Amino acid sequence: MLLHLCTWPEVESYLDRSTGIILPIGSTEQHGPTGLIGTDAICAEAIAKGVGEATGALVGPTINVGMALHHTAFPGSISLRPSTLIRVIKDYITFLSKSGFSTFFFINGHGGNIATLKAAFSETYAHLADLNLPNSDRVRCRVANWYQCESVYRLAKQLYGAREGSHATPSEVALTQYIYPDSIKTAPLDANVAKGHPIYGAADFRRHYPDGRMGSDPSLATPDHGRQLYELAVKDLSRSYLEFLN
Amino acid sequence: MLLHLCTWPEVESYLDRSTGIILPIGSTEQHGPTGLIGTDAICAEAIAKGVGEATGALVGPTINVGMALHHTAFPGSISLRPSTLIRVIKDYITFLSKSGFSTFFFINGHGGNIATLKAAFSETYAHLADLNLPNSDRVRCRVANWYQCESVYRLAKQLYGAREGSHATPSEVALTQYIYPDSIKTAPLDANVAKGHPIYGAADFRRHYPDGRMGSDPSLATPDHGRQLYELAVKDLSRSYLEFLN
Amino acid sequence: MLLHLCTWPEVESYLDRSTGIILPIGSTEQHGPTGLIGTDAICAEAIAKGVGEATGALVGPTINVGMALHHTAFPGSISLRPSTLIRVIKDYITFLSKSGFSTFFFINGHGGNIATLKAAFSETYAHLADLNLPNSDRVRCRVANWYQCESVYRLAKQLYGAREGSHATPSEVALTQYIYPDSIKTAPLDANVAKGHPIYGAADFRRHYPDGRMGSDPSLATPDHGRQLYELAVKDLSRSYLEFLN
Amino acid sequence: MLLHLCTWPEVESYLDRSTGIILPIGSTEQHGPTGLIGTDAICAEAIAKGVGEATGALVGPTINVGMALHHTAFPGSISLRPSTLIRVIKDYITFLSKSGFSTFFFINGHGGNIATLKAAFSETYAHLADLNLPNSDRVRCRVANWYQCESVYRLAKQLYGAREGSHATPSEVALTQYIYPDSIKTAPLDANVAKGHPIYGAADFRRHYPDGRMGSDPSLATPDHGRQLYELAVKDLSRSYLEFLN
Amino acid sequence: MLLHLCTWPEVESYLDRSTGIILPIGSTEQHGPTGLIGTDAICAEAIAKGVGEATGALVGPTINVGMALHHTAFPGSISLRPSTLIRVIKDYITFLSKSGFSTFFFINGHGGNIATLKAAFSETYAHLADLNLPNSDRVRCRVANWYQCESVYRLAKQLYGAREGSHATPSEVALTQYIYPDSIKTAPLDANVAKGHPIYGAADFRRHYPDGRMGSDPSLATPDHGRQLYELAVKDLSRSYLEFLN
Amino acid sequence: MLLHLCTWPEVESYLDRSTGIILPIGSTEQHGPTGLIGTDAICAEAIAKGVGEATGALVGPTINVGMALHHTAFPGSISLRPSTLIRVIKDYITFLSKSGFSTFFFINGHGGNIATLKAAFSETYAHLADLNLPNSDRVRCRVANWYQCESVYRLAKQLYGAREGSHATPSEVALTQYIYPDSIKTAPLDANVAKGHPIYGAADFRRHYPDGRMGSDPSLATPDHGRQLYELAVKDLSRSYLEFLN
Repeated sequence: MLLHLCTWPEVESYLDRSTGIILPIGSTEQHGPTGLIGTDAICAEAIAKGVGEATGALVGPTINVGMALHHTAFPGSISLRPSTLIRVIKDYITFLSKSGFSTFFFINGHGGNIATLKAAFSETYAHLADLNLPNSDRVRCRVANWYQCESVYRLAKQLYGAREGSHATPSEVALTQYIYPDSIKTAPLDANVAKGHPIYGAADFRRHYPDGRMGSDPSLATPDHGRQLYELAVKDLSRSYLEFLN
Repeated sequence: MLLHLCTWPEVESYLDRSTGIILPIGSTEQHGPTGLIGTDAICAEAIAKGVGEATGALVGPTINVGMALHHTAFPGSISLRPSTLIRVIKDYITFLSKSGFSTFFFINGHGGNIATLKAAFSETYAHLADLNLPNSDRVRCRVANWYQCESVYRLAKQLYGAREGSHATPSEVALTQYIYPDSIKTAPLDANVAKGHPIYGAADFRRHYPDGRMGSDPSLATPDHGRQLYELAVKDLSRSYLEFLN
Repeated sequence: MLLHLCTWPEVESYLDRSTGIILPIGSTEQHGPTGLIGTDAICAEAIAKGVGEATGALVGPTINVGMALHHTAFPGSISLRPSTLIRVIKDYITFLSKSGFSTFFFINGHGGNIATLKAAFSETYAHLADLNLPNSDRVRCRVANWYQCESVYRLAKQLYGAREGSHATPSEVALTQYIYPDSIKTAPLDANVAKGHPIYGAADFRRHYPDGRMGSDPSLATPDHGRQLYELAVKDLSRSYLEFLN
Repeated sequence: MLLHLCTWPEVESYLDRSTGIILPIGSTEQHGPTGLIGTDAICAEAIAKGVGEATGALVGPTINVGMALHHTAFPGSISLRPSTLIRVIKDYITFLSKSGFSTFFFINGHGGNIATLKAAFSETYAHLADLNLPNSDRVRCRVANWYQCESVYRLAKQLYGAREGSHATPSEVALTQYIYPDSIKTAPLDANVAKGHPIYGAADFRRHYPDGRMGSDPSLATPDHGRQLYELAVKDLSRSYLEFLN
Repeated sequence: MLLHLCTWPEVESYLDRSTGIILPIGSTEQHGPTGLIGTDAICAEAIAKGVGEATGALVGPTINVGMALHHTAFPGSISLRPSTLIRVIKDYITFLSKSGFSTFFFINGHGGNIATLKAAFSETYAHLADLNLPNSDRVRCRVANWYQCESVYRLAKQLYGAREGSHATPSEVALTQYIYPDSIKTAPLDANVAKGHPIYGAADFRRHYPDGRMGSDPSLATPDHGRQLYELAVKDLSRSYLEFLN
Repeated sequence: MLLHLCTWPEVESYLDRSTGIILPIGSTEQHGPTGLIGTDAICAEAIAKGVGEATGALVGPTINVGMALHHTAFPGSISLRPSTLIRVIKDYITFLSKSGFSTFFFINGHGGNIATLKAAFSETYAHLADLNLPNSDRVRCRVANWYQCESVYRLAKQLYGAREGSHATPSEVALTQYIYPDSIKTAPLDANVAKGHPIYGAADFRRHYPDGRMGSDPSLATPDHGRQLYELAVKDLSRSYLEFLN
């Protein structure tokens, strides 16, 4: 059940039976020579829709642009500053809380969002307390990273081993191939991919990761891997969502 | 050409031939008893993709949540405060400008976004001047409202006359019906629809527009109207984009 | 009745009979080779005082500096950033609302202020809702641009035709000549005045409008034109204010 | 020489001979049962104009609304929050610095502005350093309080002794009587005026100062006192400005 | 070498041989019935000084108040909002970067700080890039949590097992006992301590953790445990700091 | 009684008998060739502890970094921008007010903090009013500068006369010598010390005060002077605190 395809009376009815909502959040950032710039948003959105179908949960609109400052030395990357993203999340949760929602489950496709999301949740709880909304002290938020679901992690390990890497990974690329089979990209990939350098600013990132990959070999990805990963993620996160809701 | 389905080297190539980008912006807000909450985002996104195909322009990710504070007394509406949206737009344009983009064409589906977008453009031009980016003083932004294209406006008038109204209009509902034919909603609509009251705060809005419509009769909408409106909007805005680019 | 020339008990009495206040807002920006930098503030203030006299409304202090970022490449221009002006407006309305005012009528002399004012109104309605003031959901704001009054527009057209232009116009210059007859400036004006270029950043503006005028011929202005325009604007806006109040 | 009555080429010429500008700043706040709400702005503006005439300095537009939060429990008072006023001052100075001004002399009529102005100056110097403007490290700001000029202070003491008080003082009231002789107000004044309580929040202020005066007897004021005080202030501040400039 | 006990010429000399600085960050928050409110700041500061001595690194002043919003329903807790702490960290790093520092090692005593610190680092890298400082793209920040050092974690496990818990832990209490042996507090502790509930807002936290402990038994702490933990943490973090520096 | 060495139940008990708290605030900034960078924080903290002991007041954690932007051209100085410090102070007071504190006595060691602190108090009173806390309109804040205590001022005058100067003064240096006798620094001091130049931005400050001193001769300081100054300050401020509390 997608919020964008509901009418407001349908949402009103939904709120009679549930206060939960799923919010997909991704990023718009380089994913190496062959990964799609929308990878993190595409994965989060697809899985969130799957979880929504499996659990009957309402799924809000995808936050397409997240905290990707360290990728902004590559053309096409867009980022919100953390202070901006905090305000965005605060606005989302505040106005949905005014509607009656109190259980916010963010399905996240990008590691760079996690810290800012957690900071935003804290900021928002305090803001809601300031506003004295009736449900202020019942609001609960959680970030769930699809790529860290245990079953997903295990399959990625099994399929790709160390060549999974940590950015522009074959598992996320596989997932986008499954979702957008017409947008599979190929390019010569240097076997000697950079890895292990911590993440600082954008210029530093590009200096150390010149083609954008972090230790990964996305050429291993296949659409069928993507399908398997998708199904595991939906199953795991559906369970997590229902546990969180209750 | 969708940014989300490109790799960064593809964006790099694109920038060799163009500095333009289309950014769809909508809203997540009640659209009366039968209109979809995502109407404005759905319409802006579909038309932007059409314009991208027609002109070869790159189309960025859709800004799904805009400035809809006055709709937030209806459940399911989400809004950014203007001060938040200004920061979002500033971040988008700043980081895309660092990539080399300088021509930003926002295809907009929601009247409530216009003032804040214009304020954001001014804020951003001054911010870019502060940063001394090489292309700072070449950056140009425009907001193009699909529903105000002359041909669209004329057809809506002809199809619906005064029953077009100004929110939850049959023309935008028709467009969503064309795009999502499986999500056509019906509900009894009071013929005596409210109209003419100016827009102030959220509580005032709901008091004056109890079912969310502003003078409109969305029951007149058909998917085929939607198709016609879509085609007119794509044609008009493609011309506008190309003129703006050159 | 000017707020600045009242005592607080006089304001208290006023609030017993009216919750309306007029707030003049102008700008401090170049107005071509012969226009006064204070033109927009001068015009808004004079007309607001006239409307106050005609209607018995309280008139607040003039906001002298508005959103004029695009004029700041000319010496003497001052601007607030939109994000600053939004905070200013929010503070004005919030504290006046705490006093008991709820009807805010901004008489505006500068097109560049409109978008930011509208964004500020939205921001403020939501802020007042957060504060739970007793009159929060009764607060209403409107911006009224004197130069867009129908009668004013018609006279300007009749007097100057296309030479009215859109910045440093003979009509606004005429109005300042009527108000400050000792400050009438002359200078050679290039007949080939620039026009038609959209407004982006400050450097771009000056590049395209080298003497600051936008398609106008302010040499046509006379103090007597100014008087006529003043009287029309006061009459029109007095009617608008009273309609808005009730 | 008033900025508002200049054209931009006149400002350009002025900048060839001076980088100094005077900025009057007042407040819009209750001044007891008989003092005008605009007192602080009226006094600052009049004296600034006098200093401008005496020294040939350019005088900018008056900042009518300052930091008067503690007065906002009285109707008609308007205040900017300190964080807002800091942004306003930062914007003024930044854009005037881009024009070439570097010497900012604020003539102030309200004690409550001083702390925030000083904080704003510090904030602005650091901001200008961030921007790398050519004159960034030459910008100097000063706040000059007319009522603290030695000669003014001495005359007030001599005329009113302890009945000068510290808010809604006879000296500031006298000055407004001199400037606006048609707006002299009278009201019965409790001889037992409150005094000596420090300033905290707005509710606390009104609780301790129920009619708004702080230890003052404004009934002692006369327009002729106002004239004397005006002349002393103009003389003193003209000297201060010239010293500051050089 | 403590920054607070240095002169500026000593810092200048230090910068000739190192660009690294250690910044202790703690929190001011309840730590159960017997834990000190300053626990996190006390531990971070003591260990940072130890690391400074062991490595010759400069140690900056302790950030005593961090992100502890969820503890603010207990008296004596103080917190910065995440958006405030981000600004604080940005200011620290920016001005130290202007001095020539580029390697920032935060020794942290509070889990609640981590997300906000990481968000702040991202915000700051982008801010420094905006400023075009000479060392902008060389600035690197890291947060090191003393309680997560492998050796510390192992000893805590060995000493306390599951009774270590996750807040007001015996290990952090032991460390404060070692540092402040005169401030050892005792109180009856309910053996049935709450645990396992995720952290949301302040009211929710206190509802679920009524005495402030999260699954811990701080009565197990001894000053000698504290000494051992201190020595392990200093040794581990000294190695980490030197690795980070090079 | 130090907040950092209390448990939360101890704070709860304290609040039964007092709503007052002392907050030391200093700075981290150059203090000339021989003064410690932490001078202002060290002095404020030591005196605050002394006052706490003398009066039984609770003493909060020291704010080590204040508003020292004008010192940031000397290595080792750290500063918050005024807008940051305002948020910090607002957060401290807001969360302590929620605990039940209402009387905030800041013992300050740095002149540069005063304006921003006062602005922050105003900002906070208005913020508390927005929140409708039960004690909102009872919150009172004061800044007490130890170096301006009458007895301290008199002794400094007597010991050092004009060589006290106004920054890196022998009196503050003496106080740090008394507190940290092992950190007494010496260096050749130019007898011809700069003085009398007003404070503007950081580059300007260093240009005019090349070694960081403002008219002072810190070589006159002795630890015993420090002891005397300490005792006077504690005595004076203890009296001030108790007066303020009642």
